[in-house]
Amino acid sequence: MFDPLLLAPVGSILALGFALYLALSILRKDQGNEKMREIAQAVRIGAQAYLKRQYLGVAIFFIAVFFILLFMAFKGYLVMFVPFAFLTGGFFSGLSGFIGMSIATQSSNRTAAAAMKSLNSGLRVAFSSGAVMGLVVVGLGLLDLSIWYYFLNWYYTGHPTPMGIDKIGAITSTMLCFGMGASSQALFARVGGGIFTKAADVGADLVGKVEAGIPEDDPRNPAVIADNVGDNVGDVAGMGADLYESYVGSIVATSALGVAAGLGLAGVTVPMVMAAVGVVSSIIGTFFVKSREEASQSVLLAALRKGVFVSSFLVAVISYFLVKSTLGVEHLGVYWSVLVGLVAGVLIGLSTEYYTSSGFKPTRFIAEQSLTGPATVIIAGMAVGMMSTAIPVVIVGTAILASYFLAGGAANPNMGIYGISISAVGMLSTLGITLATDAYGPVADNAGGNAEMSHLPPEVRKRTDALDSLGNTTAATGKGFAIGSAALTALALIAAYKDQVFLYGKEMNLSLMSPNVLVGLFIGAMLPFFFCSMTMRAVGRAAGKIVMEVRRQFKEIIGLMEGKAKPDYANCVIIATAAAQKEMIAPSLLAIIAPILVGILAGVEAEVGLLCGATAAGFVLAIMMANSGGAWDNAKKYIEEGNHGGKGSPAHKAGVVGDTVGDPFKDTSGPSLNILIKLMSMVSIVFASFVIRNSFFK
Amino acid sequence: MFDPLLLAPVGSILALGFALYLALSILRKDQGNEKMREIAQAVRIGAQAYLKRQYLGVAIFFIAVFFILLFMAFKGYLVMFVPFAFLTGGFFSGLSGFIGMSIATQSSNRTAAAAMKSLNSGLRVAFSSGAVMGLVVVGLGLLDLSIWYYFLNWYYTGHPTPMGIDKIGAITSTMLCFGMGASSQALFARVGGGIFTKAADVGADLVGKVEAGIPEDDPRNPAVIADNVGDNVGDVAGMGADLYESYVGSIVATSALGVAAGLGLAGVTVPMVMAAVGVVSSIIGTFFVKSREEASQSVLLAALRKGVFVSSFLVAVISYFLVKSTLGVEHLGVYWSVLVGLVAGVLIGLSTEYYTSSGFKPTRFIAEQSLTGPATVIIAGMAVGMMSTAIPVVIVGTAILASYFLAGGAANPNMGIYGISISAVGMLSTLGITLATDAYGPVADNAGGNAEMSHLPPEVRKRTDALDSLGNTTAATGKGFAIGSAALTALALIAAYKDQVFLYGKEMNLSLMSPNVLVGLFIGAMLPFFFCSMTMRAVGRAAGKIVMEVRRQFKEIIGLMEGKAKPDYANCVIIATAAAQKEMIAPSLLAIIAPILVGILAGVEAEVGLLCGATAAGFVLAIMMANSGGAWDNAKKYIEEGNHGGKGSPAHKAGVVGDTVGDPFKDTSGPSLNILIKLMSMVSIVFASFVIRNSFFK
Repeated sequence: MFDPLLLAPVGSILALGFALYLALSILRKDQGNEKMREIAQAVRIGAQAYLKRQYLGVAIFFIAVFFILLFMAFKGYLVMFVPFAFLTGGFFSGLSGFIGMSIATQSSNRTAAAAMKSLNSGLRVAFSSGAVMGLVVVGLGLLDLSIWYYFLNWYYTGHPTPMGIDKIGAITSTMLCFGMGASSQALFARVGGGIFTKAADVGADLVGKVEAGIPEDDPRNPAVIADNVGDNVGDVAGMGADLYESYVGSIVATSALGVAAGLGLAGVTVPMVMAAVGVVSSIIGTFFVKSREEASQSVLLAALRKGVFVSSFLVAVISYFLVKSTLGVEHLGVYWSVLVGLVAGVLIGLSTEYYTSSGFKPTRFIAEQSLTGPATVIIAGMAVGMMSTAIPVVIVGTAILASYFLAGGAANPNMGIYGISISAVGMLSTLGITLATDAYGPVADNAGGNAEMSHLPPEVRKRTDALDSLGNTTAATGKGFAIGSAALTALALIAAYKDQVFLYGKEMNLSLMSPNVLVGLFIGAMLPFFFCSMTMRAVGRAAGKIVMEVRRQFKEIIGLMEGKAKPDYANCVIIATAAAQKEMIAPSLLAIIAPILVGILAGVEAEVGLLCGATAAGFVLAIMMANSGGAWDNAKKYIEEGNHGGKGSPAHKAGVVGDTVGDPFKDTSGPSLNILIKLMSMVSIVFASFVIRNSFFK
Repeated sequence: MFDPLLLAPVGSILALGFALYLALSILRKDQGNEKMREIAQAVRIGAQAYLKRQYLGVAIFFIAVFFILLFMAFKGYLVMFVPFAFLTGGFFSGLSGFIGMSIATQSSNRTAAAAMKSLNSGLRVAFSSGAVMGLVVVGLGLLDLSIWYYFLNWYYTGHPTPMGIDKIGAITSTMLCFGMGASSQALFARVGGGIFTKAADVGADLVGKVEAGIPEDDPRNPAVIADNVGDNVGDVAGMGADLYESYVGSIVATSALGVAAGLGLAGVTVPMVMAAVGVVSSIIGTFFVKSREEASQSVLLAALRKGVFVSSFLVAVISYFLVKSTLGVEHLGVYWSVLVGLVAGVLIGLSTEYYTSSGFKPTRFIAEQSLTGPATVIIAGMAVGMMSTAIPVVIVGTAILASYFLAGGAANPNMGIYGISISAVGMLSTLGITLATDAYGPVADNAGGNAEMSHLPPEVRKRTDALDSLGNTTAATGKGFAIGSAALTALALIAAYKDQVFLYGKEMNLSLMSPNVLVGLFIGAMLPFFFCSMTMRAVGRAAGKIVMEVRRQFKEIIGLMEGKAKPDYANCVIIATAAAQKEMIAPSLLAIIAPILVGILAGVEAEVGLLCGATAAGFVLAIMMANSGGAWDNAKKYIEEGNHGGKGSPAHKAGVVGDTVGDPFKDTSGPSLNILIKLMSMVSIVFASFVIRNSFFK
């Protein structure tokens, strides 16, 4: 009989194959003139150098943790495959970021060159680059899952399962652990990339714009290439690793919860096949993304959205038959949970757009407050960010309740939890194309920078500007998906953790009236704040180093300001890289050590409290920081368009302060929180047996 | 036999009597010269006008809610006494604020006059004024509690108890409800006062300092009196109502939890008598507060601290015998829970001091960041505030676990919860004197303003400055107590709520794996952010109105700038009052409606989730906002002392931006969060039966 699970590797190969096809077609495009190629080359070299260095550092971390896990496996705390699964998760997550970034850095000058012909050509190149990233993430995710699934299935057919659980249970509980590799890699990528990009950005601005008085993106600024590199390592590589992790994490958690709900193999089949369905739908969707010439921004946006909507529609239709045939009509409610996830992701994106786009009231309110100086801009931006947390929380809250009860949670709580988990899979099923519209942004942004620096004609700049400005909107939608899916995935992982602990023979009292749970909740609510504080201060310190280097070059390189000598771009990249690598260690360790420590000192109940507190507070804080940052950015742009006095006015100066404060909010601290909450859950799962046996609270 | 509970009314009378004695002795002090009296008179009139208007508005609210409660009582949702208890709670809370503020406004010029003689005289007057406030709060709290206790005791001796519970259970569950009156009053006072004080402050600065270029506290500024009024209505009346509410709330919650733990009357006696012991200890402590002449700040601080330590020591010793004799040696662990609370309050205060005083690294770090402009000051301040949440969370977490298990929670969870609750009573037992050291601050601050405006000699200014600067430190300690006690009291109220719901025949599944609990948790974590957003925007709008009025007066009143005509101070007070009254409604309604709505839509389990989420996230956010604000304020002062370029330098301008952002953080939004979390718990308790019967989730 045909095994539907085979669709998972098939989907993976389709995604990777189509990504390869797109990548090759991008590489065949016109690279533009000498100057354009040269600039792109510099950014590419810098980005590669950064990633090389980052992966070297991360490799040391991975080897260390690998041996710790191996030791724990020998001690009987873990199944022997976990250390290896940890490695593959980290490897594929890193590879996703690497490929996505490589193609992005190849695409910026090609997008600019294509935009010399027409808007549609530019859109196609930039979007194709994003699609490569999206498809590589889902393709590698499915590949990793498939390899392990079939390997473990083969292995446990011939060998006894641990703790006498059935085969499928052994497979899913082993696979669950390998999310930790992906999470760790993602956190390093987000935090390191986030620190790099903002340190270069702030450093370039503070000395170049403020002290030396040269314009943004001026080639005389030694940090300008580092700034462009930052967009790629932070927004592309970091985001790729992040969503790879959500994608894989939601699927393995759902599989494990499906087994706990008594669905057996069918519980695993549904999320895996749904992911495969999403891949095919995403590929089909990409063909719908095209625009007519010289279209307005809303037409461009509609073009991108059309692709997403077609894919979502296909997933919605096919999933119905998938759930019906795999789980049977009695579990058809699970299908509605999937739909809930799909819809919730879109709604959070729309809410993000409302709060951060200058077309709506909140951002205009911030721009208006610039008339009374920087302090009122900051207060207004914080207020908008805080206000913007309400709608996403209500959406996610409704999604949790709806997916729980639609999946049959009233009769069987395990089915309800499965419903919550599969709603995350539903939200992420179209990741191939939603990530494409998101990763498209930095490419368009860099294309604009390339066009500026190589002095292309104004109509080309106008086109790249249109593409770039669209990128800000799609980034908002992408962030909505990243945050929403992180919350649901984290909840699924927490539920899976509870099942793991139960497997080790411990039943937990998770009542909010337990003092241990409450203590965990308080600590959990505090950790996202503490984590943000660490990353924000890291950006400050790293930026300080760039400032000193840029000042040094301005002083020591003769003829630099007159344009007669070239700055040493590479050195700024090296310094930012070194600083980011150093600074990313402490926050990452916090995420790993905190849950283990609390589990040992206050018990596994406190650990669950910590995870729930961190998920709830982290979700809210992440939205606040992302939206405050986005709104400040767009308020500044709105002023630059000529409102409230326009460029150079006191209002503009106040707007720039808001934007600078928002930079680490939206590009470093905020997005890293998504991974923080997932990684802490993953760490808890992997170290569950260790913590149970060594905790002071038995 | 002697009933130890009689000590409660005795303590109340002692507190009120001693407060009256202190008040009369203050009123006999020298009022200073004509000018000093005139300024104090203007502030006094403004403050009285504000409170009159506020109490009028609040009265309408109280009457409306009274009739709603009365209707609910007729419908059988509530015991018939609750509506009346609601009124008395609100009345006494308001009265505490009123008396405290009246004496504070009488004391500012008298403190300045006393400082003309000596530093010690000034300290004695300002501290006596604070002590009146502290003792009135605890005196009225104990009075209200005693009246109701004896009345209900008498009533239920002759009448049947509701739902057939025993007499003491009927008494405590009725008394529990009257905290809602105190909470509502407190929220209005904090939010309204907070909006008033910051609107006046920001409005006065924006037009006076920035636009017209006249110095701070200049009598030509029409908003200068409103600014001084604000200190009194926000920091004095608001804080008094806030801590009244914590004080009463922790005692009634502990009493109710004591009954649930099976301690009967003894469970009520311990918190009530401990409060009475605290009153006597506080009175004794006040006699230890004196300083020798021209002492340094650390000597002054030591003088204030000595009073607090003497009181704490007395409470610690007497409580031992109280617990032993009332609960018996088998419950001696409860005594250790009390000690845990006492110590935790002090430690949170010390942590606050570390993060906000310019004597330590964090605030100096912010000051240093001013060298690179306002953006880095803001980022640094946010980072310090976020970092500063860790230690208080660990302290409160440890206090929760310790007080739970010390009181015997391992064997009897209800005893553990009683332990957590009584640790809050322990923390607040010395409120009479800790509040005195806190309320002393605004008096010293206003004395300095009075001395400045009436051109007293420099050595007097130096003395009032020393007193004022000390006030900043004691305010930090006071905030630590307010926040710490709010968290513990909220937890006690949540536990009491669970018992109430159980009394109505519903057992809850409060597991973190319940989707309803999770949804509540997410919404709860979001509410403090949403609430802060509302209050911060309210400050902005109210400040805008003051700005327009000040501009109008500068333009229309001829000879104002030349000092030939007097500004219309009263009109600014009227406008700020009206704006504050209008703006305080929406945030206050949020606190009342949110828990009821969530309870009805998602069940009482979700409501408990909401309360826990709001308590954890609100606690963390409150600390962050208070400490960021405090640190920005002190960083600015540190720069003004001549560091990093001193007054007028670009660094100073950047520091001022930080301070302005911090103003609504630390004086409006942050402290209001304490009351938000307690009020939501109170509302849940009062509306428990209504929500249970009308919820969609049964």
